[in-house]
Amino acid sequence: MWFQETLIVRTAGRGTYDLSEQVAGVVIRSAVQTGLCHIFVQHTSASLMLCENADPTVRRDLEAFLSRLIPDGDPVFRHTAEGPDDMPAHVRTVLTHSSLTVPVAGGSCSLGVWQGIYLWEHRRAPHQRCVSVTVNGE
Amino acid sequence: MWFQETLIVRTAGRGTYDLSEQVAGVVIRSAVQTGLCHIFVQHTSASLMLCENADPTVRRDLEAFLSRLIPDGDPVFRHTAEGPDDMPAHVRTVLTHSSLTVPVAGGSCSLGVWQGIYLWEHRRAPHQRCVSVTVNGE
Amino acid sequence: MWFQETLIVRTAGRGTYDLSEQVAGVVIRSAVQTGLCHIFVQHTSASLMLCENADPTVRRDLEAFLSRLIPDGDPVFRHTAEGPDDMPAHVRTVLTHSSLTVPVAGGSCSLGVWQGIYLWEHRRAPHQRCVSVTVNGE
Repeated sequence: MWFQETLIVRTAGRGTYDLSEQVAGVVIRSAVQTGLCHIFVQHTSASLMLCENADPTVRRDLEAFLSRLIPDGDPVFRHTAEGPDDMPAHVRTVLTHSSLTVPVAGGSCSLGVWQGIYLWEHRRAPHQRCVSVTVNGE
Repeated sequence: MWFQETLIVRTAGRGTYDLSEQVAGVVIRSAVQTGLCHIFVQHTSASLMLCENADPTVRRDLEAFLSRLIPDGDPVFRHTAEGPDDMPAHVRTVLTHSSLTVPVAGGSCSLGVWQGIYLWEHRRAPHQRCVSVTVNGE
Repeated sequence: MWFQETLIVRTAGRGTYDLSEQVAGVVIRSAVQTGLCHIFVQHTSASLMLCENADPTVRRDLEAFLSRLIPDGDPVFRHTAEGPDDMPAHVRTVLTHSSLTVPVAGGSCSLGVWQGIYLWEHRRAPHQRCVSVTVNGE
């Protein structure tokens, strides 16, 4: 059984956006009981992550760490036409994940208690992001 | 054909744990000949990696590199309630992998000669980790 | 429906190699209309990434960033028998991706307009790399 849907996520600029409920909805609509759920972001300046979902400070700290590791405006970058956050957004995407695959068991995503699914917008300006969700199973 | 099993991995604290044989066992029990094997860790402070499996110094060096890149007790972190290794464990997980997908061919994981499948415990204290393995194929 | 092929990629040493067309060819030969395409590199010193495909400066900047973050000959590394670029190649592989999974829709990879599929050779010398492509769907 195959089921595919595209989610449109409107971001307000750099930061993390919880997709857990929207992805759970796709899995329910797929009617798959046992299988896999694949989530894919069709952009190279936004990414996905599984992250602790209880304390928002965790996501604040992840952002602080990446901002220091890959600073906007870093002189090592030459691809700067779209601004100082353009190339850092590409590096952040490559160092995190363009796709996630999560097991489906008992008709829902078999995540750990503390795991949430997040889109990570890496550009400073608001963007509209397409996230393709594919559920496969029986 | 779908086959799903959960492995319980007891860690002795920070370090890498070879799961290659346990995963190979799941693939054999699945009886899948051609397909994919998906491995998923249901935690946000332990991760998975494919790594050189011959010289243990490679994993020692990976640990040394990550420990320097994401130091325990780094003052950039505010989420410190569970100790100085808590937030670094989340960052290490996001920068490595919560899941791996490996091709299955001829009834076993089609890994390269030097590739092993490792759980990477990022917390200093021992933990019990759940790893969900899903095999799909024909 | 399952379809599996191995691509042989001859690299000229460190740098990125566009696999988008070769992967598209496998998907066409698979005749899958809706499903997933999984790409897997069977080595621990070369990796895969989805990257901006329009301006080659993006890939030049990614290389510059990683070369600075994980310098060849870094004294933190002890696994140096194969040269100063050996251990950095393993770290680069773990921090990027050994596999990519891309949705298939309408008979082709459902990539964003700016997304290309690249092999990233991390060793300085030329290598021959095996990339296993598995397409599954209906």
